[in-house]
Formats: sequence, C-alpha cells, structure tokens
Amino acid sequence: MLNDTHRPDLRAWVTSANDGITDFPIQNLPYGVFRRRASDEPWRVGVAIGAEILDIPAVHRLGWLDGSTNGAATTCASGSLNGLMSLEPDDWSALRRSLSDLLRHDTPTGRLAHAHADAVLVSQADAEMRLPAHVGDYTDFYASVFHATNVGSLFRPDNPLLPNYKWIPIGYHARASSLVVSGTPVVRPLGQVAGEGGGPPRVARSGRLDYEAELGLFVARGNALGSTISIDEAPDHMFGIALLNDWSARDIQAWEYQPLGPFLAKSFATTLSPWVVTFEALAPFRVAAFARPAGDPSPLPYLADAGDQAYGGVDLAVEIWIRTARMRVEGQPATRLSRGNARDLYWTMAQLLTHHASNGCNLQPGDLLGSGTISGAERDSRGCLLELTQGGKEPVSLPNGEKRRFLEDGDEVILRGHCERAGHVRIGFGECSGVVVPANTSTY
Amino acid sequence: MLNDTHRPDLRAWVTSANDGITDFPIQNLPYGVFRRRASDEPWRVGVAIGAEILDIPAVHRLGWLDGSTNGAATTCASGSLNGLMSLEPDDWSALRRSLSDLLRHDTPTGRLAHAHADAVLVSQADAEMRLPAHVGDYTDFYASVFHATNVGSLFRPDNPLLPNYKWIPIGYHARASSLVVSGTPVVRPLGQVAGEGGGPPRVARSGRLDYEAELGLFVARGNALGSTISIDEAPDHMFGIALLNDWSARDIQAWEYQPLGPFLAKSFATTLSPWVVTFEALAPFRVAAFARPAGDPSPLPYLADAGDQAYGGVDLAVEIWIRTARMRVEGQPATRLSRGNARDLYWTMAQLLTHHASNGCNLQPGDLLGSGTISGAERDSRGCLLELTQGGKEPVSLPNGEKRRFLEDGDEVILRGHCERAGHVRIGFGECSGVVVPANTSTY
Repeated sequence: MLNDTHRPDLRAWVTSANDGITDFPIQNLPYGVFRRRASDEPWRVGVAIGAEILDIPAVHRLGWLDGSTNGAATTCASGSLNGLMSLEPDDWSALRRSLSDLLRHDTPTGRLAHAHADAVLVSQADAEMRLPAHVGDYTDFYASVFHATNVGSLFRPDNPLLPNYKWIPIGYHARASSLVVSGTPVVRPLGQVAGEGGGPPRVARSGRLDYEAELGLFVARGNALGSTISIDEAPDHMFGIALLNDWSARDIQAWEYQPLGPFLAKSFATTLSPWVVTFEALAPFRVAAFARPAGDPSPLPYLADAGDQAYGGVDLAVEIWIRTARMRVEGQPATRLSRGNARDLYWTMAQLLTHHASNGCNLQPGDLLGSGTISGAERDSRGCLLELTQGGKEPVSLPNGEKRRFLEDGDEVILRGHCERAGHVRIGFGECSGVVVPANTSTY
Repeated sequence: MLNDTHRPDLRAWVTSANDGITDFPIQNLPYGVFRRRASDEPWRVGVAIGAEILDIPAVHRLGWLDGSTNGAATTCASGSLNGLMSLEPDDWSALRRSLSDLLRHDTPTGRLAHAHADAVLVSQADAEMRLPAHVGDYTDFYASVFHATNVGSLFRPDNPLLPNYKWIPIGYHARASSLVVSGTPVVRPLGQVAGEGGGPPRVARSGRLDYEAELGLFVARGNALGSTISIDEAPDHMFGIALLNDWSARDIQAWEYQPLGPFLAKSFATTLSPWVVTFEALAPFRVAAFARPAGDPSPLPYLADAGDQAYGGVDLAVEIWIRTARMRVEGQPATRLSRGNARDLYWTMAQLLTHHASNGCNLQPGDLLGSGTISGAERDSRGCLLELTQGGKEPVSLPNGEKRRFLEDGDEVILRGHCERAGHVRIGFGECSGVVVPANTSTY
C-alpha cells in the first residue's frame, strides 16, 4: 500500500504544511466538505493541506489534475463525499497521487498551482465545514474490550463482560439525523431518569453527561441487500476515518437501556470531525491487530483475516481534551484528560464491516460505523468519564482546581487524533469538538 | 376531525371502490409511490381508489385540482412522499378534499375525470410500487405490553417485564437501508448463534426466523435538533400509517442482543406496505387510548394527553396470514395465523413521537416509527411466532397438516389491516407481504 505519496521527504509549496506540527502535511491529504464562511458559495470537496484547503473543483476546472482523475474529481463538485466514496480504490489512488503532485513544491503542476495559490486555496480559518458525507445509516460498535469491561462492571458488577463479547462484534443501530460537525454546540438533554430509592422516575436535565472518544469509519462501496462482504474484500469497502464523539447521558441510559439498548441517551447529538483521513494515508501506520490474550477464542472463520497479524490494526492515538467555561474566562488552555489508541481495539475495522454485512444487511456509501469508545488497559487511556471517574465516584481534578464527575454546562470537549512512526511524517485528524450548552427546560 | 370526506354515502365513479370489500373506498385515499410496471415512467405519488391508482401529477397537470392544493400537488411529482409529509395539516386536508371531489361520481370535477379515466387512472395490477418515502431514520418501539411480557418471559423467565416498561416507551434505532416494499423476497439470514450446551457459537442459517406484525408511523414535519415536540403538538407531526413486518431471526437475536439490543437479528429486511393511510382517513376510527390496569402508573406529564381518553388509540385490526410453498403448489389460499388490534398498544403513537424528541433528537419528514409487535391478551392475537408457539415449543398447525415453529423457506407472510365501525365505511391498508427465500450459503 505504501507509495510515493507517503515519502517523508515530500514538501508542499503550502508552507504551513511543512512545519512538522500540522495535522495536515502533504502525506495526509484528508477530504472534507467546505465553503467560505458566511458565503453563498456551493459546498464542495477539498483536501486539508497545512492551514489551508485545496479547492478540488477549482483545480479540476483549471485542468491541473491528471486526466485519469476526471471521474473522481467530478464528484468533488458536490456537497458530500458520497460520490467519491462510491468509486473504486484505484480512483481514490489516482486522485490522491494527482493532488500530491499538485501540492509538491518540486513538480511542474505544483509550481503552476503555487503561482496561482489565491485561485485554488481557501484558508481553513476562513472556511466553514459541514458533515463530510450524507450518512444513510449510522451504526455504533463496542470494539474495545477494556471499555466493555470497565462499563460493564458499572452497569452489571456481577457480570461485566457478557459471554458473547469475544465471539461477536457487538454493535447497535444509532441515530443518523443528530450527527453534527465539530464546533456545533451540544444541548444538554432532558430525559427520564430513575427515581431515588426505587421511587417513580422523573424528567430531569441529564446530570451525568459524558463524552465517548471513538473513530468513525466511512463505508465506501456498499453491498446489495442479501449479499455479504468477505473479510478479504472488506478493505475495498472502507473509505476513511474521522473522529467521533458519542455524547452519552448516563442517567438516561441506565434507566432506558434494557432490554433494547441505548436510545435517547445517545441520540441528542453525535459529533464528527470534518476531515476524513483515507486508509491510503493511514497505510504507514497499520500494525498487527490487537493481540488476544491467551485463552481468548480465535475469530470465527468469516472474521479471520490472514493479514491481521501484519496490518489489521492502526496505530492511532486519540486524545481527549477539556476546556471549561472558567478556563476560557481565565485564558487557560485546554487540558488533556486521557489518551487511548485504536490499536487496543479488540475487533478490527474490517471485522466490524464484514460482521455488519454478514446477515445480508446492505451497507451504502457514506454509512458510518463507530468503533465504540477507545479505551486501553491503563487508567489514563479510558475514553469516557464514566470509566475515568468510576461512575462519578472518583472525580477528575483539572489544573485550575476544578473537578469533574461528569460534564458541566460550558465545558468544551475536544478530541484529537494522530499517527506517528519512526521514519514517517506524523499525520493528524484535526479536531472534533463541542461545547455543552444548558438544557432547554422551557419545554417541560 | 371528521368532515365530508368521511361521509358513508360517498360513492366514487371508480366502481371497484364501491364494492364494500375493497380496502380503498373513497373514504380512505391512501398515498403511495408508483409507476407502470416495467416502464421507464417517473415514479410519482398517487392515491389508491378501489383497484386503481389516481395519478395525482396527471390530474394536477390537467388543472382539475383545487387551486389551494397547488403546493401539495406539486410535491406529488416526486418519487417519494417526503415533500408532501413536510407540509402542514391544512395542506393535506385541502388535497384530500380536492381528491375526494375529483373521485366522487356526483361532482362536476368527478364527472370530468370520469370522462377521461384512461388519462388519470393506472390499474394497481399494472403498477409497481416502491417504498412510500425516503426514510432518513427508522426507529422501532416496543409499545405492546402483551408482546413485551410474552417475549420477556421467554428471554428472561424470571424477569419478563422490566421496571421501566410502564414509565417509558422503550424503543431502539433500527436499520433504514434494509427497508423494502411489500412483495420483495426476504433472504433468510446467516449469523452467529449460540453453541449447543454452552459450546462455541457457530455461523448458521437462522433456524428461528420469525415475523413481527407492526404499524409504521411516518413522521411529517420534523423538529430542530435540541428542540422538542409537546404531546399536544404531536398530531401535527404525524402523517400516516403503513403496515410493517419486522422480520426477526430469534436465534441470532438471543446470542447478540446483550447488552446493546437487537442488531443483525433484524437488519436483514423490514417490509413495509406501499400505501400510507393518513390520520385524516383514520379519524372515524380513533378510540380511547389503552386503559391501563389499576395500579399501573399514569404517564409522566410530558406524555400525558388530555385527549387520550377520547381518541389516543386507533381501532385498527392487524391480521397475519401465511401461505406456504406447499399451499401455493396445491392451490390453497393463505390461512390466518392471528389477529391483533392497535388499540391494545400500551403507548399511543403521539406518545412514541413526543418521547422520541424529548431529548432534543431531531425527527425529519419521512422518518419511520415502528410500533413494535402488536399483540393482545388472547392467544390468537399474538403478533409473532415466538409468542404463538411459545418459543417453538408449541407448533402451530396449518389447515393442510403442515406445522410451523418458525418460518420455513418458501413461506409467504402477509399482513393485512383494516378499520371498521358501525355507521362508517370500512377502510384497509392493502397488503404487506414477503416470501422467505433460502439463505445464500455460498458466502461462508
């Protein structure tokens, strides 16, 4: 999978892409949907490069992309990535290579584009982003055994990890309509919560509002209803990854979730980062799948991938940062709460996708598969407050003396992700952020 | 809500609408999306009338609809009902009245349309139907306390009805992509099922394939993310009802459903009937909401509707019929397995909708809310085989001597629904049917 577009010595003519700290060096090239802020411009697809966005329809109109990319580039004139996602891996590769050439400081097309930078770049600071795709169906999995065990021990102390967990990727259908792009405020939900001491339930502002740090896998080509996707075919059906915050109201969840699973505890908002990092960009950071402890079962044949030992996982650190209202007023920077890694996920992305289609369920381009909360073995790798605070019993202390059991109004939660490996240029995912705003109690 | 369009003495110039047995007399006028079979015609919206379909864009082009319906009629030139659903109740009323006038045998526009019947009618026998709406999100509820108790006793003998059931409408997000229109074959799913005697699970054709007879409520106008829909406002957000078969693989479900709820046990197919019966058509059949037994809690204030005593429920019989492959070969008609009624649902449609939006979740026009399996107190009102056969322990005998614990390949399941009341003309829902076809085992 590695090719010239990953070479660590590549440099862009966009200087902010070469500073060694940007999430978006020329080796990354994630796709997003943008337009200039407060404009009537059409939404269109671009790639992030340093602090800028390369406007793909603009360079396509100028004729600066390789002719082989025509089909892929044409899809970029639409307001979502669904068209691009529905193409073939070869189409994505051709477009990536052509965009890389166009952004290099040392190529003929790169020099041409550089000379006309104003016509083809939009500053990220001047742009607004929307959800990268129209998500027909959003499914959320539960792929971290550490998260499942930690949370299970709080909801079911006598029975934390259920007998099916190590055999079947557990997942549930989630709500697509309330997916929002990073930066959208999150209104604290109201909902039924259990009564005190077994008394009647009451409607309340959620008092146990939480985040969950996840990855969101965007499905590329789909499968017809009644057909399946083998584990070997799975990679061709996977377009890329964004960061996902599966906001969760733990008190609503505890009261409602049996027997059919989480519902209103999750569906009030789910935040996605605007940039989709492709699997081609992630290629240098693929690692062996999670090593199942001795005694754990091997995956059943339909989920067994010969390649898993080599590259089933991805070494992708996901960090959770918080900035409270007081920190903003006092000018303090966000502080990191924890840091997990996707390589600790018990199930690979390919296994989630293949399992999802194993009953004949039709996946479609743009469908979103959440990984589930990314937690690791260590305390500082727990991907939600429920785990970090042991269900609120052990508050987290922030540097300014504030404490958090769960989120308070005004708290901003920021997810960041990046991949790094010796000999390769670090790539990142940008931010997935949201500020909690007070519940709308006027309605009840 | 009752008006001239419900008058029992109305007669259509389409004679098949007046035979006293059709599901689609002039008092019904359900909407669907159709085109002539095997044609390249555009999909468009029509109303069922007897054995025919009135082509709404055709009569609109001819100028035969009342001018006040222009906005609503324009939406009917599209291939889904979403546009019509997004309008106001007054728009729906105006269109219904104008269509009623146009189909009456005794009105000027009716006589005009009758004289040009060939230009405005398509026989249902010559038409193909598609899903009536683009469903952005599909949610399935669990609103029958009889079903919840019967099923709960099989999955959790010691704990059939959980403590939350009578307080909160239990529901879960379901899969939108695998919704199919009546008549689509249903491929038996493969999936993980628990091993014998606690041994390892295996992948198998589902051996416990079931149907669930439900209603599907189509959402009309939506609500913005972070806002809610009060119980008083709910009716204005409800467009109409279709029949829904929530096909279920019980062996897959039993192994996968904890802790996050049903997933692949349901997402292989869900069948909808093509005709959406509007709440205006249902007005004569509204009845008091289900009478909660003494000792049951009253709904919390946000779900308490002063009107429930008068019209929260709907007297709507839902029948389940089966026709096996052998019955088809031998020329035997379908036989009825059971018959339930939506008036037995513990939660009203308005309560389901208001609860769904109570956390600020944004509903959108065309969203689908399944009622959950409609079962009553009697054995012959149980809405799935799991209940009818006590989990397969007590097979159902068919008239030709065949027995069924669960569905076999070749079985056709047909849901039918109708409303009747003295002094009113009976209306029906048409059919929601699907034939089970063998699993595609070539993939594993």
